[in-house]
Amino acid sequence: MTDAFTPSDDFSAQFDSLLAWRRDVRRFRTHPLEPGLLDDLIDRACLAPSVGNAQPWRFVSVEDADLRAVVAESFAKENAAAADAYEDDQARLYGELKLAGLKEAPVHLAVFSEAETERGGGLGRQTMPETLIYSTICAIHTLWLAARSRGVGVGWVSILDPGDVSKALKVPESWQFVGYLCLGYPIENHDDPELVRHGWQERIDRSDVFFRR
Amino acid sequence: MTDAFTPSDDFSAQFDSLLAWRRDVRRFRTHPLEPGLLDDLIDRACLAPSVGNAQPWRFVSVEDADLRAVVAESFAKENAAAADAYEDDQARLYGELKLAGLKEAPVHLAVFSEAETERGGGLGRQTMPETLIYSTICAIHTLWLAARSRGVGVGWVSILDPGDVSKALKVPESWQFVGYLCLGYPIENHDDPELVRHGWQERIDRSDVFFRR
Repeated sequence: MTDAFTPSDDFSAQFDSLLAWRRDVRRFRTHPLEPGLLDDLIDRACLAPSVGNAQPWRFVSVEDADLRAVVAESFAKENAAAADAYEDDQARLYGELKLAGLKEAPVHLAVFSEAETERGGGLGRQTMPETLIYSTICAIHTLWLAARSRGVGVGWVSILDPGDVSKALKVPESWQFVGYLCLGYPIENHDDPELVRHGWQERIDRSDVFFRR
Repeated sequence: MTDAFTPSDDFSAQFDSLLAWRRDVRRFRTHPLEPGLLDDLIDRACLAPSVGNAQPWRFVSVEDADLRAVVAESFAKENAAAADAYEDDQARLYGELKLAGLKEAPVHLAVFSEAETERGGGLGRQTMPETLIYSTICAIHTLWLAARSRGVGVGWVSILDPGDVSKALKVPESWQFVGYLCLGYPIENHDDPELVRHGWQERIDRSDVFFRR
């Protein structure tokens, strides 16, 4: 134990503001991140909680144009299939939404979770092995917030075939695909979700999600 | 869009400090949280990203002593079973670890994910339905960081039988048990994981988790 966390008086309020302005970004400027910033964000992500301290997160920066094209094709294919599931007004609205910034974002980060890691010695995951993946999700969210604290936007693309991405990137079979992140400086800043703004799904109240027993 | 996020110059450094000092807390003071603070933390958690803005997180504050006893029993049973899996030095070390603060923590929060929500209209989860649970994990981590920003520690208990908890709390069948959180003011503050300090699992390097393709 060294000195404890001693933030400034208004830190908590600023942190709340960070949460409000985090958002999923799909409109990026194309210029690159500052040198060293991606390494720095990965270091922050590694401070996430993990079950048994297993640290199962694996990040792949996808830089090759051909690999990016495979991902963009997977998105285009799966997004077209998803669009077919909607009808009438919902179909029209779905078609108008911008759901990814794959073409513009300067950084693409594929995130995997190592399912067969020996690190952590199995501690904490005998009844709930899924906590390994949960740890990786915490790392993604840590990276997301750390990025936003430095002015960088993140968008999470889930409309992909996990098999397509894993195969293209030639990752070990024990790595489970968890998410694909676009990073870059945002063109716009918002404190409300794009899907609220465009009338897809409203926010709900605390009373809808919080109960006492 | 209103005014963009405008943190103070040292916000990013303070946020990094928050990440370092977040930690999984298992040693709590027993006195209650400030009035209104738990509601406030739930409100922050609701700012987490969610697929299609589905907001599938469900929080149950477990306040009844008999319900808490069921959870404590499930932990004791599963922890004893887990301990049996280790041998020699590892078994001795496992036995010495304090893995939960269920007896002392003033707040117990069971977290579930609504698997059958219609909110979000299925957007973003046709190829990866597991992103609903991932959204709930992001809410947990948001709550965790918001708590720490206000001086409150969180410990995530995963050594439980999910069925035991769901049954005791009589939640809808479509709610998937994701995690059980203990909240309270910590007795100690640390910037290194308990499992590192006690020699269970070291931290690994960025080069072990970050790759470029």
